[in-house]
Amino acid sequence: MSQRLYLYDTTLRDGQQTQGVQFSAAEKTEIAEILDRLGLDYIEGGWPGANPTDSDFFATAPNTRATMTAFGMTKRAGRSAENDDVLAAVMNAGTGAVCLVGKTHPFHVREALGVSLDENLENIRASVAHLVAQGREALFDAEHFFDGYADDPDYALTCLRTALQAGARWIVLCDTNGGTLPARVAEITRAVIAGGIPGDRLGIHCHDDTGNAVACTLAAVDAGARQIQGTLNGLGERCGNASLTTLIPTLLLKEPYRSGFRTGVPAGALADLTRISRRLDEILNRAPAREAPYVGTSAFAHKAGLHASAILKNPATYEHIDPETVGNARIIPMSNQAGQSNLRARLSDAGIEVERGDPALARILDLVKTREDAGYAYDGAQASFELLALAELGRLHPFFSVERYRVTVERRRNAMGKRISVSEAVVVVDIAGERMLSVSESMDEDGHDRGPVNALWRALAKDLGPYQAAIDDMHLVDFRVRITGGGTDAATRVIIDSADGQGHRWSTVGVSPNIVDASFEALVDAIRWKLIRDGVAAQ
Amino acid sequence: MSQRLYLYDTTLRDGQQTQGVQFSAAEKTEIAEILDRLGLDYIEGGWPGANPTDSDFFATAPNTRATMTAFGMTKRAGRSAENDDVLAAVMNAGTGAVCLVGKTHPFHVREALGVSLDENLENIRASVAHLVAQGREALFDAEHFFDGYADDPDYALTCLRTALQAGARWIVLCDTNGGTLPARVAEITRAVIAGGIPGDRLGIHCHDDTGNAVACTLAAVDAGARQIQGTLNGLGERCGNASLTTLIPTLLLKEPYRSGFRTGVPAGALADLTRISRRLDEILNRAPAREAPYVGTSAFAHKAGLHASAILKNPATYEHIDPETVGNARIIPMSNQAGQSNLRARLSDAGIEVERGDPALARILDLVKTREDAGYAYDGAQASFELLALAELGRLHPFFSVERYRVTVERRRNAMGKRISVSEAVVVVDIAGERMLSVSESMDEDGHDRGPVNALWRALAKDLGPYQAAIDDMHLVDFRVRITGGGTDAATRVIIDSADGQGHRWSTVGVSPNIVDASFEALVDAIRWKLIRDGVAAQ
Repeated sequence: MSQRLYLYDTTLRDGQQTQGVQFSAAEKTEIAEILDRLGLDYIEGGWPGANPTDSDFFATAPNTRATMTAFGMTKRAGRSAENDDVLAAVMNAGTGAVCLVGKTHPFHVREALGVSLDENLENIRASVAHLVAQGREALFDAEHFFDGYADDPDYALTCLRTALQAGARWIVLCDTNGGTLPARVAEITRAVIAGGIPGDRLGIHCHDDTGNAVACTLAAVDAGARQIQGTLNGLGERCGNASLTTLIPTLLLKEPYRSGFRTGVPAGALADLTRISRRLDEILNRAPAREAPYVGTSAFAHKAGLHASAILKNPATYEHIDPETVGNARIIPMSNQAGQSNLRARLSDAGIEVERGDPALARILDLVKTREDAGYAYDGAQASFELLALAELGRLHPFFSVERYRVTVERRRNAMGKRISVSEAVVVVDIAGERMLSVSESMDEDGHDRGPVNALWRALAKDLGPYQAAIDDMHLVDFRVRITGGGTDAATRVIIDSADGQGHRWSTVGVSPNIVDASFEALVDAIRWKLIRDGVAAQ
Repeated sequence: MSQRLYLYDTTLRDGQQTQGVQFSAAEKTEIAEILDRLGLDYIEGGWPGANPTDSDFFATAPNTRATMTAFGMTKRAGRSAENDDVLAAVMNAGTGAVCLVGKTHPFHVREALGVSLDENLENIRASVAHLVAQGREALFDAEHFFDGYADDPDYALTCLRTALQAGARWIVLCDTNGGTLPARVAEITRAVIAGGIPGDRLGIHCHDDTGNAVACTLAAVDAGARQIQGTLNGLGERCGNASLTTLIPTLLLKEPYRSGFRTGVPAGALADLTRISRRLDEILNRAPAREAPYVGTSAFAHKAGLHASAILKNPATYEHIDPETVGNARIIPMSNQAGQSNLRARLSDAGIEVERGDPALARILDLVKTREDAGYAYDGAQASFELLALAELGRLHPFFSVERYRVTVERRRNAMGKRISVSEAVVVVDIAGERMLSVSESMDEDGHDRGPVNALWRALAKDLGPYQAAIDDMHLVDFRVRITGGGTDAATRVIIDSADGQGHRWSTVGVSPNIVDASFEALVDAIRWKLIRDGVAAQ
């Protein structure tokens, strides 16, 4: 008989404590909808009243199958739960469940709250009872529980029992400072259950300050806890929270969890996990963590020559799960460690078939090595890699050549004394012997200058003659720049992500000491790849 | 009585399997020296003969206190250990220790090697015996051990016993595919010890495919293993190896390891850990992982309002260790969640004292919020944050103002038909009413064009009149670009890192839809901050 395990997401609350992360209310709504489709049981939306974004989110929160949960803190001393304005703001969000953080560590009761240990117990009791009286599902978040238990196990347990007796559905053991190791989490969780808090009323909330957030969570489940708290992509204060993106596939795919437990995650949702993880990064405009378990772009990348050649025979040799299970994909990255068999496999994935032993394979490997030494990075620019290979195989028609370009950026005051900037680009291309000269300013719908790369893109895309129709639905979606090398060898690497109306997305790379030149190289690659992809006939 | 725990680093071998990572021999040498100072017991330098870089490294490997170790594989079937050319190349590196990977999983023996189970045992025996006969310390890396043990425990154990009896100093249990969970690692490690391999001959090598590499390593130590393998910053194939950067502070600072074990890490080395971690990222030109345990820039960043205000009273309230122990620092990041007390603390850290209740504090918070909404990111651009605060406090003299600038990038063929690019910038500044016009080309010592930002920097730095001397030792060391927002709100955020001859390094931010404009804003901030830092008198 499998047991029910409950998943509680705090991306929208603790995840928002990530350095550099700031959600808008609209972004919170989109993320809540994603979490709901993923089958989470609880979605903690934020702290109503703590900041305008959280208040706005709850005012227009989406209807979810998951129980929407507001976060707050137990009432303060010297007033009743009914008369605590901070708690009132939390209640006013009208959510089905409310999670209140409270102290269980005598040091914190004295240091942070400045009240007596008994007053703290009464604050816990009265706050939880108030939630229950108002018909809410109550969760008590026992802050600093593991440190508190180490310091004074009797008091820490008394806090939990007080919340349970007052009607809390869940008692959440929180390793707030993130310093507790898995074996200790297991030991204390067992002691809590032995101390009268049933495992099916017990949640676990871990942070990654020792790199053990996932392991501590599993250790608590092994010990009997039945609610798991975490965040998508492991967002969260300091080193982050336990990553649900990692925990969910482990719980669904690995023993003893696969057979021993069931969750609310619907069939098929797991295959959406990689897309969900990347979508969150897009919303946050963060580069996805390549090395993230299960969903990272490197999670199934086989670079070692021995591994890569075995993978080609049988993927189970070097993969712990099939990447498609979580919506991810196997990658055999192009790098100067890779051998010819990896290269052929990667080209074949791109629809480029090459005979074993073709001398072009060695030339392509050499070229990749030379160019990576010069700053190119083909791991993350598959489209440029394919163009390089096609050229070396003698199968690339370049479609057009660029004779020259010039771009000017000027910042000055206009006639009204307002500071403006103007970017202008001139590009001269040659298409089948015909010279075409285009000029363009960079200017968006609102009349704002968007800079030299945009001006070059517009000039280049303005009149590509016979190819124009094919690139009309293409646009630039991301642009990343790194300085590579150092000193006089320093070069700028530009990676451009492009997309089109058919939902394709591709990445190209350019390298030059001059950022405009590097960008232009990546732009030209992006256009050529699109023309090839769409099967446009070269003139 | 504490027991000796041995640390084995494979950054230079397994770490090199990280997607996008490619060390040069010189970089390997620098990293080996860093590892040696950190007190590692073994440094695995690579696979001699597998690629030119590894061969070059061993040919000129530094003299280390740590045992330099070459990696290779057990001899192939059908030839003697003496006559295996792959093994010979490994031996020829002349290292004190040699670690040979071999199969212990019947599926792999058949699938990858295509030999009988007995032939595989003989390959292990003969290879290890050959190392010992040549006077080398022998390590047997039991590839896929945990999967192999699950499949056929008797055969897997027989492989280990064969290596041990042939004279291997260490038997390393390797979770090659990274799919084994901590509880299972502990269970199998105990079984191996019960099966005749003493714990003080046993190593553990884990990968992070389920986010448990660190926890699995600790679980093996708890079960009795006494050698730990890992990499700096958790580099490695797919999701990476167990991070020594995380494990070392855990072992040295946390119980039961702190009292129970001793390592070769010298006193004081731990305080160098953050610097070491960042240096590796610099060598690899990777952005440091903010959320990395112990050493990440966010590892001691307290963003939540409640946490930040408690930290100001007593850091132990929300920190599991003192950040200085590992050479890291506490951060109270500036973001629109932060309150006035955090803001005052952060300004005070920068030497800017503001009275509690100063109305400028509220204005600064509002301004930070407005600008972060527009794409600025002050978390990573402390110098621009300080300038913003000083301006709002009425304490910033701008030193100079920029009337206008113009920059041109041209790419064309020169008189000899060679493609060249030329960047030229004109900047007009006003210093105390005096108008100064500068023009500069971007050109390095080798006559290469370095692009528009460099041209602007040169023009700006060429003639700043009375300020010129103060900025002569300043240079730009990094340049990072991100697109923020999306659609018509898209803007380019540029963060520039500058340094000077006194060893200072500071970061400034500019935001604009135009990348040149954003860069220029960050450049101007960088110069102003330097002038303030050096106490230059404004004209």
